[in-house]
Amino acid sequence: MNNFELYNPTKIIFGKGEIAKLKNEIPKDASVLLLFGGGSIKKNGVYEQVASALEGHKWQEFGGIPPNPEYHVLLKALEIIKKEKITYLLAVGGGSVIDGTKFLSSAALYEGEEPWDILAKRIRTEVGMPFGTVLTLPATGSEMNSGAVVTNDKTEEKVGMGGPGLFPQFSILDPSVVTSIPERQIANGLADSFTHVLEQYMTYPVDALLQDRLSESVLSSIIETAPRIMEDTSDYKSAANFMWNCTMALNGLIQKGVPTDWAIHMMGHELTAFYGIDHARTLAILTKNHYTYNLKSKQAKLAQCAERVFGITEGDEKEKAEACIEAIEEFYLSLGISTTLSSYTDNFEGTAQKIAKRFTERGWTAIGEHGKLTPHDVEHIVEMSY
Amino acid sequence: MNNFELYNPTKIIFGKGEIAKLKNEIPKDASVLLLFGGGSIKKNGVYEQVASALEGHKWQEFGGIPPNPEYHVLLKALEIIKKEKITYLLAVGGGSVIDGTKFLSSAALYEGEEPWDILAKRIRTEVGMPFGTVLTLPATGSEMNSGAVVTNDKTEEKVGMGGPGLFPQFSILDPSVVTSIPERQIANGLADSFTHVLEQYMTYPVDALLQDRLSESVLSSIIETAPRIMEDTSDYKSAANFMWNCTMALNGLIQKGVPTDWAIHMMGHELTAFYGIDHARTLAILTKNHYTYNLKSKQAKLAQCAERVFGITEGDEKEKAEACIEAIEEFYLSLGISTTLSSYTDNFEGTAQKIAKRFTERGWTAIGEHGKLTPHDVEHIVEMSY
Repeated sequence: MNNFELYNPTKIIFGKGEIAKLKNEIPKDASVLLLFGGGSIKKNGVYEQVASALEGHKWQEFGGIPPNPEYHVLLKALEIIKKEKITYLLAVGGGSVIDGTKFLSSAALYEGEEPWDILAKRIRTEVGMPFGTVLTLPATGSEMNSGAVVTNDKTEEKVGMGGPGLFPQFSILDPSVVTSIPERQIANGLADSFTHVLEQYMTYPVDALLQDRLSESVLSSIIETAPRIMEDTSDYKSAANFMWNCTMALNGLIQKGVPTDWAIHMMGHELTAFYGIDHARTLAILTKNHYTYNLKSKQAKLAQCAERVFGITEGDEKEKAEACIEAIEEFYLSLGISTTLSSYTDNFEGTAQKIAKRFTERGWTAIGEHGKLTPHDVEHIVEMSY
Repeated sequence: MNNFELYNPTKIIFGKGEIAKLKNEIPKDASVLLLFGGGSIKKNGVYEQVASALEGHKWQEFGGIPPNPEYHVLLKALEIIKKEKITYLLAVGGGSVIDGTKFLSSAALYEGEEPWDILAKRIRTEVGMPFGTVLTLPATGSEMNSGAVVTNDKTEEKVGMGGPGLFPQFSILDPSVVTSIPERQIANGLADSFTHVLEQYMTYPVDALLQDRLSESVLSSIIETAPRIMEDTSDYKSAANFMWNCTMALNGLIQKGVPTDWAIHMMGHELTAFYGIDHARTLAILTKNHYTYNLKSKQAKLAQCAERVFGITEGDEKEKAEACIEAIEEFYLSLGISTTLSSYTDNFEGTAQKIAKRFTERGWTAIGEHGKLTPHDVEHIVEMSY
């Protein structure tokens, strides 16, 4: 087991009818900016619940944060924050709204000239403007971690940021909201959370007995929950499991003391930046090929996953590992998610080279859990994914 | 799944050589009281590491906190805290030292006349004096939760306390310390952590898929770690697994959204209060009989545990449940822990009646996950345990 630090001060308030509790979590004297996305919260009843809970608080709103929160849209919110002397942010939405809010939390207190530098220069956020979240779309885990990803449409870039100042003070998770989520988004949430676990687990063994089992627990729960929630999003019990799985998949716990990979995400972000493909689907496109390309170095964990998660007991270690890759692929397909780049865009030729070039330019020349994957390897993996 | 709140701001610093980091965690201007137990830290090198990390801080020490931290001993430390204007507590030890420190954290800021009231009147600690811990004996999980148990020798009582003000600000877990722990204490830690999980898991199903699997993960990891660490406490890898298992068994996570029992602990505390039996061993004495007595209401979870943790696939639900109880019993015995009261004391006659009487006097007339166990039931279970 590797040395690690674990710190996560986000307060989770989970369950039916809990949105009303946000009034106790936001300081009475705060000047609140409520941030949301395309407006689905005005149709599914969440906006009314939040507005009612905010009664007595001073608050205003900023809607229209797009999927893959866009930098230039966020800058408009930043203007309001400064002009209106906002002191507290409240994200009501999914991962994009929460990630956008994290950027704003950081930018609001940033003293430099150009807020994009927070992303470009990878400036860690030690202290941000306090914020809470009301989650409406389980998937990214952003409601209980301190990371965010922001998109710049002009440069076609998707860049990560983070730091201990970016934990939400509280996050309210009411699974009742799941019933209004379109099937496509449910499938995305299942695939996204599933791949989050894989990125923290499918590496090499370090005798971290509990961490391995915790990751396998989340994988198994997602697999068990998937057909239930895909069949009926109005089933509260399935929705609760779906929601808690997604949070636990990326709240930092399962990665403590073990190596992590994240190459799939690094490559996948480029596919979203170039073609606007849903984040979760970019992961599904790349996973099988990444694992096939790196079979040797990931074989022991793939075989362990085959046995413990998929119940595959036949064959030697290599055969089990290969069967695991097939089972992972089948899971994505069972969600109705295509796993080839060509099923999302006709312009796929040259993508592998473009991504490899970007990685080289950024100095991302040694990625993955061993720090050994080069842009050349990345080119191969993306090409396998056409 | 039940509604729940999860909040745990303790920062865990885990791994070899990490004790030195405490100097960054305690404010430079703090006046620190270092608290410890019988003095083993002066033999195993931990005291030197802590003293060296505290260089530059203003600090003094208070040793001699006994196993099952005794109220009248703690009062002496409280005197020093007040007289010396201490502002920060540092517990260096196992669960007893940490629990004692939690009492002091609460009592230091308590404005009432009689600190025992915190326990007697079950006063929740909203704000305590800040404190950190250096764990030297994995078992209780106290290093990452906000509960404590204090003993009063005069009244032969062992009473719980807690509140959000009692989370350690940080806890340093260096598995290297495990090598100096006597076998008896290792066995206790394994049995204690194992039973902690059982108390939060062995109830009835509420369709909490992930929570069940997380609990099963901790149980499986403890079972896997036990023979390794019992055989060789100097094996760092085993020690690391042992330590992390114990913390995760009682840091609050696995109980979120599910019913919990805790009847075994409530009865077990009385056996310690009356006879001074090690806490972990009182749990081992009671578990089998508690589950046998309540077989019907716990049958579904017992059978699930049989399958997933012990690999028992034969038989119907009741048979699997019974086999699970046997397997749990065998686990305690494999640690060299006797599971009958009569193997610890000859004066066991009348114990069941005495405990039932105490429960009645305290109004503990409806305990367990269903709130249905009466003092009459408790009398039966304890009697089965002679």
